[in-house]
Amino acid sequence: MQDIDELILSKVDSDRFTVTYFLACTTYEEAKKMAWSIQVEQTIEFPYEFVSNEYIKEELVGRLEALDPVEKGYEAKISYLSELAGREITQFLNVVFGNSSLQPDIWIKHIELSPSLLKHFKGPRFGLIGMRELLEVPERPMLQAVIKPIGLSTKELSAMTSAYALGGADVIKDDHGLTTQGFAPFEERVARCAEAVKEANAKTGRNVLYAANVSGDGVALMERAYKAKELGATALMVAPGLVGFDAVQALAKDEHLALPIISHPSLSGGFMMPGRSGIDASVWFGLLNRLSGADMSIFVSYGGRFSFTIEECNRIIRNLLDPLYDWKASCPAPGGGVTEARLPELIKIYGKDVMFLVGGDMFRRGSHLEENAKFFRELLENC
Amino acid sequence: MQDIDELILSKVDSDRFTVTYFLACTTYEEAKKMAWSIQVEQTIEFPYEFVSNEYIKEELVGRLEALDPVEKGYEAKISYLSELAGREITQFLNVVFGNSSLQPDIWIKHIELSPSLLKHFKGPRFGLIGMRELLEVPERPMLQAVIKPIGLSTKELSAMTSAYALGGADVIKDDHGLTTQGFAPFEERVARCAEAVKEANAKTGRNVLYAANVSGDGVALMERAYKAKELGATALMVAPGLVGFDAVQALAKDEHLALPIISHPSLSGGFMMPGRSGIDASVWFGLLNRLSGADMSIFVSYGGRFSFTIEECNRIIRNLLDPLYDWKASCPAPGGGVTEARLPELIKIYGKDVMFLVGGDMFRRGSHLEENAKFFRELLENC
Repeated sequence: MQDIDELILSKVDSDRFTVTYFLACTTYEEAKKMAWSIQVEQTIEFPYEFVSNEYIKEELVGRLEALDPVEKGYEAKISYLSELAGREITQFLNVVFGNSSLQPDIWIKHIELSPSLLKHFKGPRFGLIGMRELLEVPERPMLQAVIKPIGLSTKELSAMTSAYALGGADVIKDDHGLTTQGFAPFEERVARCAEAVKEANAKTGRNVLYAANVSGDGVALMERAYKAKELGATALMVAPGLVGFDAVQALAKDEHLALPIISHPSLSGGFMMPGRSGIDASVWFGLLNRLSGADMSIFVSYGGRFSFTIEECNRIIRNLLDPLYDWKASCPAPGGGVTEARLPELIKIYGKDVMFLVGGDMFRRGSHLEENAKFFRELLENC
Repeated sequence: MQDIDELILSKVDSDRFTVTYFLACTTYEEAKKMAWSIQVEQTIEFPYEFVSNEYIKEELVGRLEALDPVEKGYEAKISYLSELAGREITQFLNVVFGNSSLQPDIWIKHIELSPSLLKHFKGPRFGLIGMRELLEVPERPMLQAVIKPIGLSTKELSAMTSAYALGGADVIKDDHGLTTQGFAPFEERVARCAEAVKEANAKTGRNVLYAANVSGDGVALMERAYKAKELGATALMVAPGLVGFDAVQALAKDEHLALPIISHPSLSGGFMMPGRSGIDASVWFGLLNRLSGADMSIFVSYGGRFSFTIEECNRIIRNLLDPLYDWKASCPAPGGGVTEARLPELIKIYGKDVMFLVGGDMFRRGSHLEENAKFFRELLENC
């Protein structure tokens, strides 16, 4: 192994981005060795001692910018030449954690972008404020309802959509398991649900949005997005765990679509469950969603049927809302156990700049969904 | 909670597929509760007690087919109506592990497909035998070399390609970090490397393949695949951890491409590192790659710089090679520490039906790459 001290350079120059890795280990020497392994694995993935090219050694191999003891291990800040990320999210994530994701005891805690990456990663088109403007809801916490369960017919789902819209939901979205199954095929479902929201809006004078789930295989994703817009959907939902953050960005950047993008957490747990290696929930649900242009990030709240902690949820919220580059804030959307009983506490923790996702709990007050949506809406108006 | 015993049905009917979950828990009652939570979460994601529709309750909610004690927990076999998977990989994975991936102590151990899913998931086009035919290597273990490190120019990478091809590599692939960075832009690199292999093949009479890395954002992936074929690439590499298994399938199924597909493990560690929840390496590297049509699956071997065990690697190999449905076998490609010293042992463990990936270790014998490739080739011929 080379003497790595020579690679600890004090200055991050402007075309490098920096990843903060938590390394679970006990000694400084061990941490240095782990950091060096990441510096090489995530860049040249090649025995350093065989490299003769000085530019590759100096600029392309990751640079250890800082290595500090923290609870239960060390925190390494490693910077990478922005050009390595190739101006796309796929390759950016490949550099951040590609092969190292297969090695133990490494957690992604933070990523600092560089000016050149910020030319490509521009954040949300609408963001929290843009969604508030679309919805004409300037201040209060917002309400998102879900049409479900899977297995219901288009007729049943559109009646449900109508009830939610009349009752006072701000956004109504497809269940994340609704794709284009025979129970309620995509085009039929989207057309009828979009129509139901439009009719309800005409009655109430509100601007409720209907989000169609467009996660699908390959080209089907963009085809569904275009079709959804044509059929009247006013927002789109996509799960980066299923289709990649590049799909979120493709939807968000598309000038012809120009619809709010809602990101769903499905199949992202592999990276965030407390285990041997992974990506902090605040980076996945927070930073990466905002970076790729999600206007709203649905995440699983503490205290429900998922196991995230209140501290993790607060970190997610901060990464979605706090000033960062010239990005708009993304709207945080906690879900998974948002009940009538817990709502006052959740509002206290999450604040007003949030859209609560009420799924199955919308049914807990009985089968009159318009009344139930109205009840939740009033809770939020009076908070 | 409903009495779940009524949902334990003995018969899996033909249009249901079955997922085997390992549940880390101590008592049978606990395991039943966890299984029930998955049965509901992965299907209706809705309070079961509020469902009135009998069809949804009987057919759509996951069915617990078996629940057996195993070491450190229980194994639950849960079957799902195939229609839930919506005839696409994205939604299939959504049902297998979508939201449950965000809950602790759950591991995907196995998936049994149904006849209706097998209409859509047809496995590899070439597979191991097809690749052996293309390469005209009927029996011996094969050799895959990698052009690297990133930072080299197209001229340097194509010279390397030429040396590997003349020396005796069977497949030469782009490093997984080579996309379209300025160091060696995609079209220029692919054209020159493909040409180098073609020239070497003309000299040697061999049929070495050159695999271009096409992992990229959104539509760029398929555009690069088409362009790579046009420029002379004779195989394609893609990383499902970066772009999804749907991208692997899209490449594999495309009749105009009709090239062997090599799957790379980057950014898949979140799901496989021993932690709180995840997907067994044999399912990700083995079953899911074969299902989505990867002709070759690169995985990280035991004993190198990654932490997978010999048992895990054997399970991966079995899922790639053993008779399964009417799928062709996929070629296993162990990498990450395939050295001269370890090769005899690795051949003993992995057998002959394998393509060893030699990356940085190709350089360990000095800078004469043609000789180095020849050396590895001879080791494999004489094994």
